[in-house]
Amino acid sequence: MQYLIRMDVYPPKDMPEEEFNRIKAVEKAYSQDLQKKGKWPHIWRVVGAYSNYSIFEAESNDELHAMLQGLPLFPYSTFQVTPLATHPSDIKAGK
Amino acid sequence: MQYLIRMDVYPPKDMPEEEFNRIKAVEKAYSQDLQKKGKWPHIWRVVGAYSNYSIFEAESNDELHAMLQGLPLFPYSTFQVTPLATHPSDIKAGK
Amino acid sequence: MQYLIRMDVYPPKDMPEEEFNRIKAVEKAYSQDLQKKGKWPHIWRVVGAYSNYSIFEAESNDELHAMLQGLPLFPYSTFQVTPLATHPSDIKAGK
Amino acid sequence: MQYLIRMDVYPPKDMPEEEFNRIKAVEKAYSQDLQKKGKWPHIWRVVGAYSNYSIFEAESNDELHAMLQGLPLFPYSTFQVTPLATHPSDIKAGK
Amino acid sequence: MQYLIRMDVYPPKDMPEEEFNRIKAVEKAYSQDLQKKGKWPHIWRVVGAYSNYSIFEAESNDELHAMLQGLPLFPYSTFQVTPLATHPSDIKAGK
Amino acid sequence: MQYLIRMDVYPPKDMPEEEFNRIKAVEKAYSQDLQKKGKWPHIWRVVGAYSNYSIFEAESNDELHAMLQGLPLFPYSTFQVTPLATHPSDIKAGK
Amino acid sequence: MQYLIRMDVYPPKDMPEEEFNRIKAVEKAYSQDLQKKGKWPHIWRVVGAYSNYSIFEAESNDELHAMLQGLPLFPYSTFQVTPLATHPSDIKAGK
Amino acid sequence: MQYLIRMDVYPPKDMPEEEFNRIKAVEKAYSQDLQKKGKWPHIWRVVGAYSNYSIFEAESNDELHAMLQGLPLFPYSTFQVTPLATHPSDIKAGK
Amino acid sequence: MQYLIRMDVYPPKDMPEEEFNRIKAVEKAYSQDLQKKGKWPHIWRVVGAYSNYSIFEAESNDELHAMLQGLPLFPYSTFQVTPLATHPSDIKAGK
Amino acid sequence: MQYLIRMDVYPPKDMPEEEFNRIKAVEKAYSQDLQKKGKWPHIWRVVGAYSNYSIFEAESNDELHAMLQGLPLFPYSTFQVTPLATHPSDIKAGK
Repeated sequence: MQYLIRMDVYPPKDMPEEEFNRIKAVEKAYSQDLQKKGKWPHIWRVVGAYSNYSIFEAESNDELHAMLQGLPLFPYSTFQVTPLATHPSDIKAGK
Repeated sequence: MQYLIRMDVYPPKDMPEEEFNRIKAVEKAYSQDLQKKGKWPHIWRVVGAYSNYSIFEAESNDELHAMLQGLPLFPYSTFQVTPLATHPSDIKAGK
Repeated sequence: MQYLIRMDVYPPKDMPEEEFNRIKAVEKAYSQDLQKKGKWPHIWRVVGAYSNYSIFEAESNDELHAMLQGLPLFPYSTFQVTPLATHPSDIKAGK
Repeated sequence: MQYLIRMDVYPPKDMPEEEFNRIKAVEKAYSQDLQKKGKWPHIWRVVGAYSNYSIFEAESNDELHAMLQGLPLFPYSTFQVTPLATHPSDIKAGK
Repeated sequence: MQYLIRMDVYPPKDMPEEEFNRIKAVEKAYSQDLQKKGKWPHIWRVVGAYSNYSIFEAESNDELHAMLQGLPLFPYSTFQVTPLATHPSDIKAGK
Repeated sequence: MQYLIRMDVYPPKDMPEEEFNRIKAVEKAYSQDLQKKGKWPHIWRVVGAYSNYSIFEAESNDELHAMLQGLPLFPYSTFQVTPLATHPSDIKAGK
Repeated sequence: MQYLIRMDVYPPKDMPEEEFNRIKAVEKAYSQDLQKKGKWPHIWRVVGAYSNYSIFEAESNDELHAMLQGLPLFPYSTFQVTPLATHPSDIKAGK
Repeated sequence: MQYLIRMDVYPPKDMPEEEFNRIKAVEKAYSQDLQKKGKWPHIWRVVGAYSNYSIFEAESNDELHAMLQGLPLFPYSTFQVTPLATHPSDIKAGK
Repeated sequence: MQYLIRMDVYPPKDMPEEEFNRIKAVEKAYSQDLQKKGKWPHIWRVVGAYSNYSIFEAESNDELHAMLQGLPLFPYSTFQVTPLATHPSDIKAGK
Repeated sequence: MQYLIRMDVYPPKDMPEEEFNRIKAVEKAYSQDLQKKGKWPHIWRVVGAYSNYSIFEAESNDELHAMLQGLPLFPYSTFQVTPLATHPSDIKAGK
């Protein structure tokens, strides 16, 4: 079951750069672990923004929320969540 | 080079249903042809809407516009186009 | 797995009233059938609008889309879909 | 009489984490007390947000405002309030 | 219990003027009847618009919805509904 | 001549609570003085918000601006101002 | 007492051009009569739009509404009304 | 050549009041100088806001930008700029 | 003096295609004539839309409005107009 | 391949002016270097704003993002990116 997520990051203005870089490194490892597990099959940078569009794969809304809330950048980000369904013209779905 | 496209369809109110069904059949063939050519790698239905989110692959903005304008549903749709770049955490890009 | 749905109905301006009443009767039966099956556990009228807020219960985004698209009023309505997760203070969830 | 409430929380940026955790603990107790009394029959987490959708049960607008204003997180939150009425297809209302 | 209502009227484009005038006459009688009963204590014209701001007095959300839905102009109007509570500086409330 | 005013208050984040309480006490006295003079005939709390809807009575736009600008909370508030006219169905206006 | 008005005109799609031209001629005469009386001291075309920004001079909100409602194009237009007050730097006001 | 400008001022939160008053005094002198030169023929206070609507007279977009950017309050303000043209009903333009 | 214009075209739904094609041919000739005269130095298609972004060169707001209003597609289009000034980093302006 | 970019700059409130001026000087050199290379063919100041509209020339979305992200003012700015295609009336494109 898939969801389109837009994630916009707003770096905290008063955090030392070094501390924020440390958080970003943990974020990257967290993201790549979910990518390897097939839970985060796509991630794209939005041109001109500190933002990404991603596809998440989850068994349930609860699992999706847990994955998003676990992001180290969660407190510094907003998320737009769009539930996706199979499209009737999608050849990968055998349509 | 990839783009995220949101397409919202507004069926014309005074077109006979049979005629609109014919246009939708041509649209489906057109879409599946581009999917097979790798130009339209992903298409998802937005839950609760006559809309889809899609990923398009194009060599240029001109090629993308030509593909969208060629859609039989183009005159009855709106498109939001977001240019995408490689994300620095994307494992598929070798990051 | 639950979703909050806001449904706004826009009656077609040129449909005979009798025909629209027939559609609404089918809609009511369709809705009450889903309510009895536990798929549509809550439905409320929005004060001052031809709109409702509802809770849907579905196994997947695909099942939810199928239920919404099956509504007789689907072509005359818009839907806002919000995926819901368990709240950490919800006593019914044993929190 | 019921209302749909969307509550979005904006944690204060300069409050020590310990202090904010103390407020959240009081908030949880306050919420669960109202849930047990039947005044706050539903609460759901919005996926990907520090937000909830809730159903409140109140005798009057004044009682509702008093319950919301009493929330320990009230000064750090915004509320969207939608008055709800009985829906003519609601089987629980005997329709 | 009071509510602020903004009502915007969109006259149907293809209804004969005579027919619409008849509906407006019924609307005026309906409104003045509710005013006399104390259910619609205030009504103001919004300058430059076919709109009004009104205060309604109702025992419940259900009663309010019934009053609004009963308006002859209901199918040609939109309503914004804001629940009101007693203000802590209101001298009429003995504050 | 009447105006509908929506006033939203945004308390300054770094002002000592004691100081803000002092301003609110002056605000209440200022408001009640205008209420007694008939210049501020109605004030309602918006449910779930640090906001009010009010009716002001003024001889001119200049007099209205002077009353609003004189509010102790003016620097911490925003105002939406809607000029009101007599409604052709208003029984209090002898219609 | 002055107001800034933005007026956007939406010509009716199914009215014969000749009929609409007749309405516009009456509108022009109506406008120029108010200009000569000093009630409509300024009118400007918004570049690229069938719209104008205007300054109206009125004794009251009621008088302003009567002038706007009397416009032959009133049923085909929307109006944004901003009440204006004397600016503390206005040399024409002797500041 | 004229432009309608809406200017909204957002006083800096951490500037000493004395310093901000000094800037406002320079602003007033700057404004009145442009008014006397005929470059700023109208200025009105927006009721209920720290904002003004103004008419500027300029030979070019460059001259207008230079005048706005020269305002002492420029760094603490936003500007909405609407280019104006002669209206075909304007009697002052000999129409 | 330059302006950025966004033009969105909304083809009339009930005009015969042949008639609309005739208007578009006149539009193209009109546009290319202004391009040759240096009055319309740039025109770009917005990807995925029946829209263009253009740069216009005009001596005054009045001249710009006359050029836009003269477009055969003017009655079927909306225009967003942004006045442009010389940028302090523009090497073509000798900065 | 071209893109229209709107860039809005929000200077950091707590950075010493001298430090921000140093960043702006680097920004200007960076911009003029891209202008000389033909990558940034147009830049205009938006009248009344700390903003510009620009045309960028890039081989790909990735190249465009790299150019924008490299701007010294990137962390203090937002960007709206519109992909552009050849217009069918553009004489410079030989249409």
